[in-house]
Amino acid sequence: MSEYGKTFKAWRNAAGSTWSNYTRHAFVEGLGNGSLPRAAFLNYLVQDYVFLFHFSRAWALLAAKADTPEEMRIAASTIDGLVNHEMAHHIQTCAAAGIDEAALFSAEEEPENLAYTRYVLEAGYSGDFLDLLAALAPCVMGYGEIGARLSREATSTEYKDWIATYASDEYQKVCVDVGALIDAAVARRIGTLDNSPRAEKLAGRFETASRLEAAFWSMGLRA
Amino acid sequence: MSEYGKTFKAWRNAAGSTWSNYTRHAFVEGLGNGSLPRAAFLNYLVQDYVFLFHFSRAWALLAAKADTPEEMRIAASTIDGLVNHEMAHHIQTCAAAGIDEAALFSAEEEPENLAYTRYVLEAGYSGDFLDLLAALAPCVMGYGEIGARLSREATSTEYKDWIATYASDEYQKVCVDVGALIDAAVARRIGTLDNSPRAEKLAGRFETASRLEAAFWSMGLRA
Amino acid sequence: MSEYGKTFKAWRNAAGSTWSNYTRHAFVEGLGNGSLPRAAFLNYLVQDYVFLFHFSRAWALLAAKADTPEEMRIAASTIDGLVNHEMAHHIQTCAAAGIDEAALFSAEEEPENLAYTRYVLEAGYSGDFLDLLAALAPCVMGYGEIGARLSREATSTEYKDWIATYASDEYQKVCVDVGALIDAAVARRIGTLDNSPRAEKLAGRFETASRLEAAFWSMGLRA
Amino acid sequence: MSEYGKTFKAWRNAAGSTWSNYTRHAFVEGLGNGSLPRAAFLNYLVQDYVFLFHFSRAWALLAAKADTPEEMRIAASTIDGLVNHEMAHHIQTCAAAGIDEAALFSAEEEPENLAYTRYVLEAGYSGDFLDLLAALAPCVMGYGEIGARLSREATSTEYKDWIATYASDEYQKVCVDVGALIDAAVARRIGTLDNSPRAEKLAGRFETASRLEAAFWSMGLRA
Repeated sequence: MSEYGKTFKAWRNAAGSTWSNYTRHAFVEGLGNGSLPRAAFLNYLVQDYVFLFHFSRAWALLAAKADTPEEMRIAASTIDGLVNHEMAHHIQTCAAAGIDEAALFSAEEEPENLAYTRYVLEAGYSGDFLDLLAALAPCVMGYGEIGARLSREATSTEYKDWIATYASDEYQKVCVDVGALIDAAVARRIGTLDNSPRAEKLAGRFETASRLEAAFWSMGLRA
Repeated sequence: MSEYGKTFKAWRNAAGSTWSNYTRHAFVEGLGNGSLPRAAFLNYLVQDYVFLFHFSRAWALLAAKADTPEEMRIAASTIDGLVNHEMAHHIQTCAAAGIDEAALFSAEEEPENLAYTRYVLEAGYSGDFLDLLAALAPCVMGYGEIGARLSREATSTEYKDWIATYASDEYQKVCVDVGALIDAAVARRIGTLDNSPRAEKLAGRFETASRLEAAFWSMGLRA
Repeated sequence: MSEYGKTFKAWRNAAGSTWSNYTRHAFVEGLGNGSLPRAAFLNYLVQDYVFLFHFSRAWALLAAKADTPEEMRIAASTIDGLVNHEMAHHIQTCAAAGIDEAALFSAEEEPENLAYTRYVLEAGYSGDFLDLLAALAPCVMGYGEIGARLSREATSTEYKDWIATYASDEYQKVCVDVGALIDAAVARRIGTLDNSPRAEKLAGRFETASRLEAAFWSMGLRA
Repeated sequence: MSEYGKTFKAWRNAAGSTWSNYTRHAFVEGLGNGSLPRAAFLNYLVQDYVFLFHFSRAWALLAAKADTPEEMRIAASTIDGLVNHEMAHHIQTCAAAGIDEAALFSAEEEPENLAYTRYVLEAGYSGDFLDLLAALAPCVMGYGEIGARLSREATSTEYKDWIATYASDEYQKVCVDVGALIDAAVARRIGTLDNSPRAEKLAGRFETASRLEAAFWSMGLRA
């Protein structure tokens, strides 16, 4: 997915099978071929709402750590997109299934959910803008990659709305913009990743977050 | 200004003359009677742009510390307002005076400016959502109060655009919303301020931030 | 264990079976009756070394959030105890088993380990001193309670060194001191927990951290 | 002062006259020739006690952001030195002048004092370990340089105790250790400062903190 930027491509390659374990997880394949049980999907949606709340907090923390007006503007737009569109979309979808927002927000947070968001937030608090971006990237771009692939490969229409959301031009543009934000942040803070002693640590953050994403899908299947 | 909420009223009263030193500062009076030199106003605008950048970071930090979707939505809207409207407005006004955004962003940050924003951000990082809100409130509401008063009392049209911005229904609504956010956050985390051992500390944060605002006006006059 | 303070007692009671699932976990019982396989114990020690590194970071964050010299002094002493005594003790024990410090520090961090420490750190960064203390307490006091109980009830000498460490007067004093620190911090920031809207959230942090402790023991058994 | 490490030397050179304005400030010269009024010295000591409290918080934050056991150990030792020795020394000196610790801790914090410590803490919270170290270094090493120089050049014995504290082998060793910590942290996170896009920003943090130190001396003279 080189269209999401040079740094993403390097991190994705370095993550190896961890990346494919996440983006080609059984849950994902079930979205594509329609075999995913509805109960698992709803369980995932509820947990994902709680996830999006903490993920929005993490994007807000990124804005708090911005160094330039441009970094601030992209982070602010992303927070707006998450809070006022993606979370709102979850609320609507769940409402249609008879789950209201209060129930969503008060859902018991599963261990895999908690582990993932706290890892991302802590990476941001203890590190800098770039440490946080490396931990945020797998969710943003992984969903973009999954949405784009399933929109071509899906053999069922069961989960076409979910697929369409992440395959949409709008969401793909978010991935491209975040990829450009990452490349610019690397240029600004490191220069080039090659030969940088930080390269391994940043790639490690990306890989850990990808592993936590795969565990999140497995949690979804438990329902 | 009880219309900005119960907690604001308590904090404002507790701040006493510190509050009037800020909201009736010579700089403010000069905006109202037109005696403020243009050079001082431009100097202030440039510093205020740098201020707004860090102030936006502080509001983003507030979103990162939100406990509920409602707290998150208000913080996210405020960030959007600051970044995409208030900062944009500064850029336009300064552009009209021949100062471009790159010059704004690279302006040397005055000590009073630095002291204020770092105090607010640190209050937020070391404390919780409420510690941060108490440090954010004086800027938001003080400007609302100044704008509303000058729109009635100004004897000159020299700075009418500035006055109109903060006297506007839109800005006054921000103050009312932030006041309600503060009252709800106090109810959620403390119950009632009366008898709370935190009351004095929170009022102290509000007063310190108000004092730093007054110093910011004094800095503006130095130009 | 009322000797660890009034607040701890309230949190422990509120945690109910989550607390006993942690302090009477099969891993713990295996330490007492000697049935715990040596490989499981070593696996635990290695993970616990990584844990102690991040747990020391969390205590350091507590010191960064201290409001008074007394809070600072207790946190500073605890960091010193963790870094220069407890971690050093792990290094010695592991060295005796042929595992050097470099191997300890570079050990792959298990998901349960990561989940626990990042939860604690993030609670501290996003909340205040008290949010962090509530998340730190289960580890400190739970080990004190386990050590004290096993020193009376153990039916095997296999793990007597481990038991003696946490049953020691020195470690018990740490628990008493931290209990007093918590009670004083509650008095300073809340007054009394009864009727405080924060009580439930703080008790929730304590319970979540206790649940993550139980998962840590389960991880140890996987070896 | 190349003995405090390679990075410190680069930052000190880049700070130019800002560094000499700080380390050869009229307050400092008054310590050396005995012309500093006792009231100014006591005023400084009281403010410096408040400063050391927040500075200890900043070192604790550094420990919270440590990446390696070695970084953790040095930060933990420094916190212990600040809290249990340097602050204790201030308490004793002030007690001898009739000022007790409660009075010290509750002293009104001067704006220059607040500006400095909040700048350092915020640099640490928003940035990473290295951003924080660059903001911490001027205080640690500047005092070392001043102590060492005045121990050779002082023409009065009026402030010999103060001078001896910072000229002592013990304090000089702290400076050397912190210098080595900085060099190792740069090697670990950047490689070499030459050609790194972060070099300018880090040097800027060092210079800003040095400027805030000079303002702190000026505040001392106001008494």
